[in-house]
Amino acid sequence: MDKSAGILTIDLGALRANYDIIGARLKPGCRAGAVVKADAYGLGAEPVVRALYDHGCRDFFVSSVAEALRIRPAAPQAQIVILNGYYASQADAYVQQNLTPALGSFIEIKNYRALGEKTGRALPAWLSFNVRMNRLGLGAVEEEELRQNPDMLQGIDVRAVMGHFACAEIKDHPMTQEQYAAFLKIAATYPDAAKSLSNSSGLFRSVDYQFDIVRPGMALYGLNPIPEAENPMRPVVRLDVPVIRMRVVYAGAHVGYGATYQFAQDTPLATVSAGYADGLFWALSNRGALYWKGIRCPMRGRVSMDLTTVDLSDVPSDQRPKPGDMMEVLGPHQSPEQLGRDGGSFDYEVLTSLGPRYERRYIG
Amino acid sequence: MDKSAGILTIDLGALRANYDIIGARLKPGCRAGAVVKADAYGLGAEPVVRALYDHGCRDFFVSSVAEALRIRPAAPQAQIVILNGYYASQADAYVQQNLTPALGSFIEIKNYRALGEKTGRALPAWLSFNVRMNRLGLGAVEEEELRQNPDMLQGIDVRAVMGHFACAEIKDHPMTQEQYAAFLKIAATYPDAAKSLSNSSGLFRSVDYQFDIVRPGMALYGLNPIPEAENPMRPVVRLDVPVIRMRVVYAGAHVGYGATYQFAQDTPLATVSAGYADGLFWALSNRGALYWKGIRCPMRGRVSMDLTTVDLSDVPSDQRPKPGDMMEVLGPHQSPEQLGRDGGSFDYEVLTSLGPRYERRYIG
Repeated sequence: MDKSAGILTIDLGALRANYDIIGARLKPGCRAGAVVKADAYGLGAEPVVRALYDHGCRDFFVSSVAEALRIRPAAPQAQIVILNGYYASQADAYVQQNLTPALGSFIEIKNYRALGEKTGRALPAWLSFNVRMNRLGLGAVEEEELRQNPDMLQGIDVRAVMGHFACAEIKDHPMTQEQYAAFLKIAATYPDAAKSLSNSSGLFRSVDYQFDIVRPGMALYGLNPIPEAENPMRPVVRLDVPVIRMRVVYAGAHVGYGATYQFAQDTPLATVSAGYADGLFWALSNRGALYWKGIRCPMRGRVSMDLTTVDLSDVPSDQRPKPGDMMEVLGPHQSPEQLGRDGGSFDYEVLTSLGPRYERRYIG
Repeated sequence: MDKSAGILTIDLGALRANYDIIGARLKPGCRAGAVVKADAYGLGAEPVVRALYDHGCRDFFVSSVAEALRIRPAAPQAQIVILNGYYASQADAYVQQNLTPALGSFIEIKNYRALGEKTGRALPAWLSFNVRMNRLGLGAVEEEELRQNPDMLQGIDVRAVMGHFACAEIKDHPMTQEQYAAFLKIAATYPDAAKSLSNSSGLFRSVDYQFDIVRPGMALYGLNPIPEAENPMRPVVRLDVPVIRMRVVYAGAHVGYGATYQFAQDTPLATVSAGYADGLFWALSNRGALYWKGIRCPMRGRVSMDLTTVDLSDVPSDQRPKPGDMMEVLGPHQSPEQLGRDGGSFDYEVLTSLGPRYERRYIG
């Protein structure tokens, strides 16, 4: 029994390879940034940013000032765009750390202009447009008002205009073309600004959607940006968790909270030291699986907070693991997509739920 | 716009009150420890342990050595029991920090005896018995073998024997009485050791289940140990997240990824800066709600990684929030139970999924 927690292995070589796979898809003149919000989708913002920065990436996207400050040391010369916009209460950080808000409302524009006046120079910003996503960004009415009153942006150095795809992961979704058309109209209004519309899926769907800067996130981390086809990306994440107890239960026995699973026959079980507090969703109870030497071992009973119990019936009795051996949660036999699906969730949430108790190992 | 992240408020006064509510339920001679694994169910292990230790608690339960080491400075004289048992690779930590493994297999017993011999004294341990949970602990065959060969424990200072309830949260579940009967037999074998069987639910079900030490976790944190009745515990957790954008969308518009929700009429929306990376489960999409001034505001569209969009139709137009205002996720109008249910999960997982981006405020 050597390990008390799981081991989360993050392949920075695969991450860089994915950045290059994306780069090879881009039309001339277009460059790729990297979305690294939410701790780089759970993989560790600092090492991910450092690896990509050293590999040539110069545009990073985060959601908040706190996230921007955390990665600034790893990307000293990069443009760091705060997607959630401008927080006037943290004005100093924008100026001192050269952070670029994606301004998405008149309030933000007004406050950011005031900051520029106070600072005595035009500060950099992106303009974020809604284009029917209805989450963040300037809406159609505001867009028109800005078009007619460009002075509203006076004193702001508008570096780029952006929109965001809502449905690009679904092949040929009509919304994508509608959003593209809406964005084209905006792009024409800001000839001097860079244009950015595509997330991971969008950039793979059409070079028309790429414009000047693309903003991949999930594809960098190995998730499939075109789910209807084979995943063009290299896997970045591997997760193994240790067995801490082997047991054979008798026919008729139950396992775990609520006694939700009853064994029809004598059954070998392994208990691993990872549970829903580590991101093995409770909804995986009696549905998900771990892998041992490539053999699927179904979860039996409810996932506990710190423990999960799996059925080793399909493992030959002389090949069963022993305490201390590591079973695969994510790796060559199980993708984040598969684990997510089994848990009523999806691949992104699998990554952002990777728990703090795992030992992080960065390779490559 | 003053806050970029949500605010997670943890009421240490309520935590202490819950410890006292439990204490008042205990039969004479029984004492309450505290289960603080998984970062005290997501609430912060150090402040929780410090508050309970200062309030008189002297027994803490964690899952791993790493968790034990983290709380030792806050509970210098306490017994810290490692529920996952003895990890021989971390032997030094047990001795140096006086950690007590709950030994649950013959391998662990053998290795821990060896540590005692090497150290030159009997080291403290609990014995963990399976009692039909089939997750951790010594099984029926091992139990019998130990009974017949007590020498196997020579050189180990057996402080306590423990079992664990699988179904105590379900009133009158037959498994509970079966486990109790199995544990009584074990208890008789170890007259000099303390006995511990009950989690939060078990200790509320019957004084017979309390024995010498009870191990509440969830009830300390305000969750309901007797779900069929009114919650006897005080709420400990409150979570509020900031609005970052207000918008009125037109009839026919969609919102969020996948365009999964279409509005039948013009609708006021608020976007808050918290999403599934913060523990607002993706499964809450189009099902969960936030609260504003006590009014339920249903989530519309998919929960995003960092953002969630809610419908303010039921809020009078002159009372709508503005950017920077905080909406209730957990508090007087929405319990962890409710949020968990809406997201295909349950209250425990709501707590352990509370994201790292929230600002933690400890009050009381």
